[in-house]
Amino acid sequence: MVPFGISLSGPAYGQQRGKGCSPALWKVKGLQEGELLPTRAGDRQGDGRKEVKKGFPGWEGVLRAVEMNRKHFCISEGWAMFRVQMDGRYSEQLEARIAVTGSNLCVGLDPRIEKHGNEIGEVERFLEKVVEETVDKVACYKPNSAYFEAMGPEGLAMLKRVIGRIPDDVPVILDAKRSDIGETQRRYAQACFEFFEADAVTINPFMGYDSLEPFLGYEGKGIYLLAVTSNPGSADLQRRESGGRKIFEFVGEFAERALAEQRAVDVGLVVGLTNAAEEVLAGLPDSPLLIPGLGAQGGDLSSLAGSVRSAPNVVNVSRGVLYGDEGTPGARANHYAMEISRAFRGAC
Amino acid sequence: MVPFGISLSGPAYGQQRGKGCSPALWKVKGLQEGELLPTRAGDRQGDGRKEVKKGFPGWEGVLRAVEMNRKHFCISEGWAMFRVQMDGRYSEQLEARIAVTGSNLCVGLDPRIEKHGNEIGEVERFLEKVVEETVDKVACYKPNSAYFEAMGPEGLAMLKRVIGRIPDDVPVILDAKRSDIGETQRRYAQACFEFFEADAVTINPFMGYDSLEPFLGYEGKGIYLLAVTSNPGSADLQRRESGGRKIFEFVGEFAERALAEQRAVDVGLVVGLTNAAEEVLAGLPDSPLLIPGLGAQGGDLSSLAGSVRSAPNVVNVSRGVLYGDEGTPGARANHYAMEISRAFRGAC
Repeated sequence: MVPFGISLSGPAYGQQRGKGCSPALWKVKGLQEGELLPTRAGDRQGDGRKEVKKGFPGWEGVLRAVEMNRKHFCISEGWAMFRVQMDGRYSEQLEARIAVTGSNLCVGLDPRIEKHGNEIGEVERFLEKVVEETVDKVACYKPNSAYFEAMGPEGLAMLKRVIGRIPDDVPVILDAKRSDIGETQRRYAQACFEFFEADAVTINPFMGYDSLEPFLGYEGKGIYLLAVTSNPGSADLQRRESGGRKIFEFVGEFAERALAEQRAVDVGLVVGLTNAAEEVLAGLPDSPLLIPGLGAQGGDLSSLAGSVRSAPNVVNVSRGVLYGDEGTPGARANHYAMEISRAFRGAC
Repeated sequence: MVPFGISLSGPAYGQQRGKGCSPALWKVKGLQEGELLPTRAGDRQGDGRKEVKKGFPGWEGVLRAVEMNRKHFCISEGWAMFRVQMDGRYSEQLEARIAVTGSNLCVGLDPRIEKHGNEIGEVERFLEKVVEETVDKVACYKPNSAYFEAMGPEGLAMLKRVIGRIPDDVPVILDAKRSDIGETQRRYAQACFEFFEADAVTINPFMGYDSLEPFLGYEGKGIYLLAVTSNPGSADLQRRESGGRKIFEFVGEFAERALAEQRAVDVGLVVGLTNAAEEVLAGLPDSPLLIPGLGAQGGDLSSLAGSVRSAPNVVNVSRGVLYGDEGTPGARANHYAMEISRAFRGAC
């Protein structure tokens, strides 16, 4: 199996999307002409496998690029849509997506039903519009389960449809902050990864490393553990010292341990921008970070500038994109994506 | 407003339930003949208020009892159903319920759909039967959200129906272990208390005291904070030492702080039986405890014997009642209720 590759979609979808596609570098391992590339389950292209052949329109440029360099090739702009092959690890998918879009912005889908006439249908149309306007400017989306749960089961059915409409190459992080143990936790993993088909999920690690177990076996998926959240109350437990170390550093160890144990899932960390001081980041491993707190919560990106990290990190904005005062969600996403890029270029 | 009283239901419902009702002591504050007692929102009896009058069948005995003692009276067995007035604080409701049933058993409603032909309808019938068989032997029920979420939105719609069918005087603890901050956490509170109409909910306190804020204003409701869970991994963070105290003791302080601040909600604690050593209980305030870990998890009730506590505590059994090897759910609930009573009599 090719652990990481590309797949092609038909002309209609490609034409629609092709215009906005920028040339981008991709990692490719051992790609051969004529080889069958497995694609992601739920792929719209039939049996989930695509034959790699030179005759396919738009493909020639890619193969030439592959021949130029076995490790990387360049996707040239064209009518055909090139999508990230979703069989890689979660962090590889996210990294590829950040490379394609040049954006580290995660847009939080936290819809407030009272702003939409208390109508679930209106919320759905709003989110569809937000995704349509912002999709080329974001690394990923992060719907927060709470807003949908408060709408009752119909809200959750709507969440599933919203996730289903997000293109397969855009990772979806379900912000659920779940925690439980054993068989119960396994049901949460089922709900997040199998029912909602999220690519990653946030987890509250307070119950300990063994509580993560049911999530660790999911290939190609990610989990983000709460390490230091963006509220003042994160000082109450997370930032407390224990034996010369901080509690959140032990959470960081959970991520390192899963990596050392070669678990199928990738383990990232949630670090609130408002509390992401240099010494906080210094105490955490180079795992993918999910960084909330920009925008309405007032976090300052300069705090990231001193940190040199290689894992794919994303900064989340929810209210600032969905319900900002000026412009459209698309314009606001663009603004935040550029602001984050400037800060990350300073850092990396 | 009478902070704690009783209400009456119609004959049909009373006849169905009356047979199993045992005489029990109730606390009554300032109850007067002819007084209008506010009843719980969602009450099936119309406008949510019942007039107290001697002419109502079955009422005479109660009034006589009230006259005997202004603080307590005895409900005699009869065709009319006497229900706890749900306007008191959560801990008062739970205490009254424990007094009525003589049981500190909490039955965990954790249905495994694969044991019911993977049919949500079958799960619903099973839970209905479990509640019917066990209701007179339990202090409360604790459905765990994970099992219902794994069934998708229809599973959650079913959970709402199941909760709706549990008599109003039996507290329902929604085991959701939610955690978030601000507006997001407020949506979780809405989902738990307003959509599902749970009487109490479990919360993961890792994000700090301020994260609890949206739950603290709900009158007559309860929250249980995870303090020491029943898994070995509870040692990873919860039982770590910080400045001469344990992390779970700081969680205990959250409960004390809410009490000191006279918040509307009652704050209890989750303490896993397997880890409820004497020194653990000694480090926690006298808040209502929710104690999982009996039955399949193999916890030992003798660990509770040395602890003298006055708050209403309940011990949860899920699998042991729902899917035990011997007898019916009713017989198994009876067995566990008696086992817990023996242990608690030793303790209190």
